[in-house]
Amino acid sequence: MKVKKIAKANNAFQYPLLLKNLLNYSLMLTPENEIIYRDKVRYNYFEFNKRVRRLANLFKRFGIDGGETIAVMDYDSHRYLESYFAIPCTGNVLHTINWRLSASQILYTINHAEDTVILVHADFLPVLEGFASEMTTVKKIVVLTEDGIVPPTKLKIEGEYEQLLAQESEEYEFPDFDEDAVASTFYTTGTTGNPKGVFFSHRQIMLHSLGLCGTFGIIDGACRVKSSDTYMPLTPFFHVHGWGFPFLATAMGMKQVLVGKFEPEMVLKLFMLEKPTFSHCVPTILQMLVMHPAAQQLDLTRWKVIIGGSALPKALCRVALQRGVDIITGYGMSETCPILTTSFISPAQMKNDIEWQIEARTRAGIPAMMVDLKIIDDEGKEVSKDDQSMGEITARTPWLTQGYFNEPEKSEELWRGGYLHTGDVAVINEKNVVKIADRIKDVIKTGGEWISSIDLENLIGQHAAIAEVAVVGVPDAKWGERPHAMVVLKQGHSLSHEELKAFLGQFVESGTINKWAVPDTVDFTAAIPKTSVGKMDKKVIRGNLLKL
Amino acid sequence: MKVKKIAKANNAFQYPLLLKNLLNYSLMLTPENEIIYRDKVRYNYFEFNKRVRRLANLFKRFGIDGGETIAVMDYDSHRYLESYFAIPCTGNVLHTINWRLSASQILYTINHAEDTVILVHADFLPVLEGFASEMTTVKKIVVLTEDGIVPPTKLKIEGEYEQLLAQESEEYEFPDFDEDAVASTFYTTGTTGNPKGVFFSHRQIMLHSLGLCGTFGIIDGACRVKSSDTYMPLTPFFHVHGWGFPFLATAMGMKQVLVGKFEPEMVLKLFMLEKPTFSHCVPTILQMLVMHPAAQQLDLTRWKVIIGGSALPKALCRVALQRGVDIITGYGMSETCPILTTSFISPAQMKNDIEWQIEARTRAGIPAMMVDLKIIDDEGKEVSKDDQSMGEITARTPWLTQGYFNEPEKSEELWRGGYLHTGDVAVINEKNVVKIADRIKDVIKTGGEWISSIDLENLIGQHAAIAEVAVVGVPDAKWGERPHAMVVLKQGHSLSHEELKAFLGQFVESGTINKWAVPDTVDFTAAIPKTSVGKMDKKVIRGNLLKL
Repeated sequence: MKVKKIAKANNAFQYPLLLKNLLNYSLMLTPENEIIYRDKVRYNYFEFNKRVRRLANLFKRFGIDGGETIAVMDYDSHRYLESYFAIPCTGNVLHTINWRLSASQILYTINHAEDTVILVHADFLPVLEGFASEMTTVKKIVVLTEDGIVPPTKLKIEGEYEQLLAQESEEYEFPDFDEDAVASTFYTTGTTGNPKGVFFSHRQIMLHSLGLCGTFGIIDGACRVKSSDTYMPLTPFFHVHGWGFPFLATAMGMKQVLVGKFEPEMVLKLFMLEKPTFSHCVPTILQMLVMHPAAQQLDLTRWKVIIGGSALPKALCRVALQRGVDIITGYGMSETCPILTTSFISPAQMKNDIEWQIEARTRAGIPAMMVDLKIIDDEGKEVSKDDQSMGEITARTPWLTQGYFNEPEKSEELWRGGYLHTGDVAVINEKNVVKIADRIKDVIKTGGEWISSIDLENLIGQHAAIAEVAVVGVPDAKWGERPHAMVVLKQGHSLSHEELKAFLGQFVESGTINKWAVPDTVDFTAAIPKTSVGKMDKKVIRGNLLKL
Repeated sequence: MKVKKIAKANNAFQYPLLLKNLLNYSLMLTPENEIIYRDKVRYNYFEFNKRVRRLANLFKRFGIDGGETIAVMDYDSHRYLESYFAIPCTGNVLHTINWRLSASQILYTINHAEDTVILVHADFLPVLEGFASEMTTVKKIVVLTEDGIVPPTKLKIEGEYEQLLAQESEEYEFPDFDEDAVASTFYTTGTTGNPKGVFFSHRQIMLHSLGLCGTFGIIDGACRVKSSDTYMPLTPFFHVHGWGFPFLATAMGMKQVLVGKFEPEMVLKLFMLEKPTFSHCVPTILQMLVMHPAAQQLDLTRWKVIIGGSALPKALCRVALQRGVDIITGYGMSETCPILTTSFISPAQMKNDIEWQIEARTRAGIPAMMVDLKIIDDEGKEVSKDDQSMGEITARTPWLTQGYFNEPEKSEELWRGGYLHTGDVAVINEKNVVKIADRIKDVIKTGGEWISSIDLENLIGQHAAIAEVAVVGVPDAKWGERPHAMVVLKQGHSLSHEELKAFLGQFVESGTINKWAVPDTVDFTAAIPKTSVGKMDKKVIRGNLLKL
């Protein structure tokens, strides 16, 4: 096919989508709004803009002229937010170091990303000291502190952040450059192998921010976002750009409350003082906050929360709704910048009863604006929108990592067929609402059907005698795979395989599961293998079974 | 400077910003919502999507494989909306014909744009018939009717729109292509010369739509837009894409009410039946509606209106606010897609009194998201944000026409210095709120100061003896220009130049104007030259003065 193009005027400005556009807009609406760090620092957007420019000038003093990777290793802070703009807007790449990784993994990511400068919170200096001699590209280290005092260190450091900034000019003209320049990078870890580096361009983060404007701004319904919100992110800034909202919140001049090192008491204190209206976090953080004794008297009725990172448990959703929290689910991953889907509860639906709300708000939701999401079966065909047929979520959006840095094979695997493969299995209903069923490597493929191991675990776990259960697929000559259950009984209880089968029979009769979903084999065991972060290690479980 | 780029996976999809993304999203949220045309047609978004695809297939049947320019000459209708997507999403260019132009101008635009197909409402067939033999590129004509009956015509036509659509399949896979492909074109007229063609790419209209999401979605305050709104555009679709909102409204699955040929009674009837909550129009349309006898009992308290096209008179703003209309101003032009600025009234400010509201809501407002707006003086320097210093509005945004089609000289003039020159003179205050003062060709430049001819006309017009007044600048050896007034007295009144000078003296004393703003010369005359659309023709006035 043909398309028409028309000659541009020589002088016509071809506006690149750069993060500086968001930074500049932060002075437009409500620059008098404050950015608050714990009970230590508060300043307005005029000051924020000046400090971002001082930081940009510091990089210049370091001899950096763009194209370098500058890492940050900090809790969520105003300084981290400054780096979100100063690093990419000077044409450099922001590497957000995941300080929850092991020391050797952190070292790996620093070297792999080719970091030349690290801005590091004093708390993490010992980590860097531990492998200082092994850092191959780092030339300069700047220390971020709570009190201005740099602890004694063997590392060669440039100085303390505030002192260095104080020496710089607050004037800096951010340049224009190619919108495809990389703006950020960070690492995602699987159960095996080295962390993999994803990367996002200015264009991608801009379009992600604009996608959020559509999805959370124009769309009406539960948990939407406004420039008048007070924003308190509760996800680490190293985790997928704090889910992308810090860029948008800053552009819109929102009042921001940054909680630093996560301490429930500090968060609750800030909650009482600053009255946040919008947050996002993983379920465990929300659990910790709403269950905290000091939180029982808090008024949460003006609080909107997006839950992501792992499934929102229905029980937690219920507690949150009962406390008046406007809670929804978002779904995405490191590779996706992150947003792919989010709950859509229309104004009319907000009046539905709590059981309806729990069901709707714990689902992954509908695709965000500009997200082309396909749930595909083994043959690459889209599954029916019947809320039953399982398939892998694949996607195209303007903000997906275009590969893994220096990992060509894994990059092609990620993008096979021209769609990014999430590795997540889901169903979708006729209203386009997605429900995550399982990780694809854990789903059990038997006789052409996909069975969610998580669904089976939930059903089996309802038996009164069972403390814990893992379900995995085991190879089967006839059916491809068959489900196998690994069960830990509660102390003093007993259960036979036949009793368990009979128990599951009720779910077969009610149509909740098909009869071929009932596990053929059951191991009763004392403990289920876990990963370092406490998730069931199904890879190990499957490996052990194959060895038998 | 350097930037970092990282190799993409071979299969990674580089998502182009295409209008089909908006069309696809129209099925996501509330596809059961209806698009309504007068009291004649109503259907939901499922049907809309099918009809868009039927129209795409009709173009295919016509042998069109992209890259052609297809014109529409219609009132605001569901069919027009279908063409907004079917034409660009098939890789063709949508030419929205301004049927308010003279026949010779319409012919000029059809030939200049190189239209190959015209979709024309039966009402406009006589216009085409008048110059049929002079159309140089048009090969096919499709007729749109209110009742399915094509009136007798000498033109060779392909058939009636509905009958042609009925023959086509409702399946069509819109292709991917370069986001810089031209999606739309239309013509802007000055006081002299031929109409000039502006043009916008898919990328530009997408980013304009996303900019609206930020500006009208995330920003909180007066007159914002939601997917739950009922949208009733009251600007012609030929005028700068109906100001860009039809694209967004469709993507968000809003209920839409399209009024067709403008008849106040029909609009008011639809208002009562469909209860629109969001519209945009020029001041005269709003005036016509709120002053209409049948409108006096209408509840307007849930109606949001953006006024653009010309300045919102304070008196009209007052009437609208008193009726409970949430009214604001938008500013832009054909060359700018159109949005540049819009009123920002924060939730707190919405409680200010009506005098404050009138002042704030009649100003052009603050730059929209991603709009880099500079108000510059004669030397290209930005004026102070003192609400006094006048300069020309220049802009960079991702959605400005990159020139005039086949007019290289005018294109370079438009974009001189790398900023689009609007030709509008404005002041800006410390809160970034813009106020339009004049057209730059009408502003009077005297002794290094800029004086708004409109401001002077407003002051002079306050004299009880004066019926009408025009102020223009006349060349002056010493001062560059000096203001000259042309005055029409009310019947039975008299006034001398000295009396007028004395009258203006009060404004000099109160500081409203400087003493050098008082016109040196005054002509008392029977009539002021006007353009064909009734605006004062200052070009003619200046020309007449020079001849003297």
